[in-house]
Amino acid sequence: MTAFNELMAHQRETEALSQVAGRLGWDQETMMPRGASEQRSEEMAAMEGVLHARRTDPRVGEWLSAATGPDPVGEAQLRHIRRSYARMTKVPASLAQEIARVTSMAQGIWAEARAKDDVAAFLPTLGQVIALRQQEAAALAAGGDLYDALIDDYEPGATAASIGAIFDRMRPRLVALREAVLGASYQPPKLEGVFPKQAQLELAREVATAFGYDWNRGRLDLAVHPFSSGSGDDARITTRVVESDPFNCFYSTIHEVGHACYELGIDPAYRLTPLGAGVSMGVHESQSRIYENQMGRGRAFTGWLHGQMQARFGDFGIADPVAFYGTVNRVQPGFIRTEADEVHYNLHIMMRFDLERALIRGDLAVADLEGAWNDRFKADFGVAVARPSQGMLQDVHWSVGLFGYFPTYSLGNVYAGCLNTALRAAVPALDEDLARGDARSGTGWLRDNLQRHGGLYEPREVIARACGFEPSEEPLLEYLETKFRAIYRL
Amino acid sequence: MTAFNELMAHQRETEALSQVAGRLGWDQETMMPRGASEQRSEEMAAMEGVLHARRTDPRVGEWLSAATGPDPVGEAQLRHIRRSYARMTKVPASLAQEIARVTSMAQGIWAEARAKDDVAAFLPTLGQVIALRQQEAAALAAGGDLYDALIDDYEPGATAASIGAIFDRMRPRLVALREAVLGASYQPPKLEGVFPKQAQLELAREVATAFGYDWNRGRLDLAVHPFSSGSGDDARITTRVVESDPFNCFYSTIHEVGHACYELGIDPAYRLTPLGAGVSMGVHESQSRIYENQMGRGRAFTGWLHGQMQARFGDFGIADPVAFYGTVNRVQPGFIRTEADEVHYNLHIMMRFDLERALIRGDLAVADLEGAWNDRFKADFGVAVARPSQGMLQDVHWSVGLFGYFPTYSLGNVYAGCLNTALRAAVPALDEDLARGDARSGTGWLRDNLQRHGGLYEPREVIARACGFEPSEEPLLEYLETKFRAIYRL
Repeated sequence: MTAFNELMAHQRETEALSQVAGRLGWDQETMMPRGASEQRSEEMAAMEGVLHARRTDPRVGEWLSAATGPDPVGEAQLRHIRRSYARMTKVPASLAQEIARVTSMAQGIWAEARAKDDVAAFLPTLGQVIALRQQEAAALAAGGDLYDALIDDYEPGATAASIGAIFDRMRPRLVALREAVLGASYQPPKLEGVFPKQAQLELAREVATAFGYDWNRGRLDLAVHPFSSGSGDDARITTRVVESDPFNCFYSTIHEVGHACYELGIDPAYRLTPLGAGVSMGVHESQSRIYENQMGRGRAFTGWLHGQMQARFGDFGIADPVAFYGTVNRVQPGFIRTEADEVHYNLHIMMRFDLERALIRGDLAVADLEGAWNDRFKADFGVAVARPSQGMLQDVHWSVGLFGYFPTYSLGNVYAGCLNTALRAAVPALDEDLARGDARSGTGWLRDNLQRHGGLYEPREVIARACGFEPSEEPLLEYLETKFRAIYRL
Repeated sequence: MTAFNELMAHQRETEALSQVAGRLGWDQETMMPRGASEQRSEEMAAMEGVLHARRTDPRVGEWLSAATGPDPVGEAQLRHIRRSYARMTKVPASLAQEIARVTSMAQGIWAEARAKDDVAAFLPTLGQVIALRQQEAAALAAGGDLYDALIDDYEPGATAASIGAIFDRMRPRLVALREAVLGASYQPPKLEGVFPKQAQLELAREVATAFGYDWNRGRLDLAVHPFSSGSGDDARITTRVVESDPFNCFYSTIHEVGHACYELGIDPAYRLTPLGAGVSMGVHESQSRIYENQMGRGRAFTGWLHGQMQARFGDFGIADPVAFYGTVNRVQPGFIRTEADEVHYNLHIMMRFDLERALIRGDLAVADLEGAWNDRFKADFGVAVARPSQGMLQDVHWSVGLFGYFPTYSLGNVYAGCLNTALRAAVPALDEDLARGDARSGTGWLRDNLQRHGGLYEPREVIARACGFEPSEEPLLEYLETKFRAIYRL
């Protein structure tokens, strides 16, 4: 056996075990009895210990020194293993353990603080988490920028400077669009009524089928916070049901179908290898977002959805499909990122990006975070935050140490904008298909041009290859301006 | 850290990983999408590899040499680890791998042979499985009896001689009881009708609650072959639904509740240690059986069940609760072990015990198995086997190498008979409780006197301690004779 083959055999078992750990996480959020949570955390810790030992096994370093990739695919495999090994061996084991311990504890403290709207109860822990992530970033950055070192974990190749430049160009146009839309004399009707749970779930399954979700290699369950989970031949999705807001269920489903279709669309030859999963958070989010927004919230698909909802829920007060299209896309200033419309969403992210970068670089003290958040929110959204659960306590991310993760959501939107331009040019009949509730021509193009590559190319490169042009924010901004000016009759 | 503490820390992680592997098995039978099965087998193999490496880690041998138990509980922990380590290190890794490979393949071949009633297609594989298990037994037995070496894995302390002696005493009395019952002039009515799936499942949940199943630490799902899974704070059960036969659903549920209550009833101090699971297959089966039969199929509980069924299914043709008690306990000669009544069940096991012992000892050739099975069946059950799927191909056990396992089912029945005598003496009001659909006083006594000990005592010892007398087949036989003579008005 060559060093390359030995390394790949070792890696394959590691990937299989990593799938097991992921499925354990899925079980925890969907199936696990409540009383099992303490035991489960021990089971998870044991799995993490096994994975960590395998990933930092000194033999991996030896194999990496000796191995050469037999072809470009092999080279890409080595690139991923090399990056992961370098990251994991640069961070001292004691620091990694301390981060795991503190963030696991911090999540509970954050949840309690949010429930009580008690910022002070969370700040000391948040300070600890930031200090630990700063130490980790210092170990990784080797003198470079701390925040860049953290971003790199989620979006290889991206930097605070490159993202900041995109955001600087986006912000004035989004603010202008927001002002125009909120000041428009036409406002789409609001959805009202009660939409029974079982019927929502049945339609959610239809919607997932419409987007080409492969039920033979996945399943749909309920979760408090919808997510998708798993790679290869087992990519599961979850959704949630709010009886007053069926769009929550349907669009959570489409979003997670986008993530799962990416995983299921990867070349089967890459299964259980480093290339066998989505290449970055940003590219992953581009898939969930193009399914959810550019396809799912377009005029064509909402027309089909409107008919389905009428058939299942009867007359729910919005008879005109054009008005319904506006209803699905209503723009409203709101405090909560996860509930934001397409116009507001990226403004939420930009704000978090600026704040967390300042926190990690040491330019903003934890004690000043709440004030900074509330000032910025008032400036960007025009409303004052009344309670911290609407403000800096709303997201779980920082409590679990996810600094550098938020900007990948907006990168995903930017990439989705680019892909949408290319997709529409390549599949001119897409809207006809979507109007019949069949998104498979869109899914097929995305699979053939992007999803199948898995981790073969770097994030920006895989987008550029699929699009035929270098990605930028311009297609997203044009898409948003055109769409929302039409809906609001501007 | 002492050697004992180091060993226990290592063992605790192994137990946690073993729970993870078990939950993966649960997922496979209940939740996994069909298309994931190939990938899953790689994930399972990776988990098994991790567990095998941990269990045969040479450090375990070193710790075992150096460790002394700080107290009787510690001594019992060491006894379990020592036994497992000795077994796993006596069998060469290459043989263990070959057994895993062949039995995994054999299961598919068996399933296909059964579907086609084609014995010849299965025999070569069965021969291979037997030869491999003989080799394994030889490695374990160190000159002793091969079949005893296999039994010891499922029921430490039991031997073919001790089990054979019990069976020799049981057989004539069971055959006599069977003859009497089948020849009786009174025959209880047969249940007929269609019992909708959803209502069956709702009542199954009520039934599980009646037996004290802790929903906070478990859950109920559907599976093709019902099973229970998991220890500590996560012991899940499954059942199945046949619309023409609701007893299948209800009594599968009670049976699995018995297994799960055992696991959930173990002293929490033993969680994720070798003492934290049921001590043997026989003792496990004693719990499932006493819940299912001595409590669940008794006159008192069937009275409650009768009322519940009338409330949910309306008039189903059996209005008298005494007649219904007979219906639940109808004795019929049948080919299939898993569908057998209490009178016939152990006759099925005895037959398998004699045949598999002869196969392992080399006294019966694989080519002669079908003839031997059919002759014996005709002699014991009075009917001729028409198709091998009704005969020697009916059970999965032999295809996966489970030789020495069948007799533990009957040992479980024997132990359940003993425990029932002690339980009735200790909880005289049990039948009053059962008649109200509340088995918790029975569950409570079993937990306090048996379940809580987990692996602390050897199998026979834990039964003797709970009962206050040495276990024998006599209580079971008396219980069966009394019960069935009354039902059949003899």
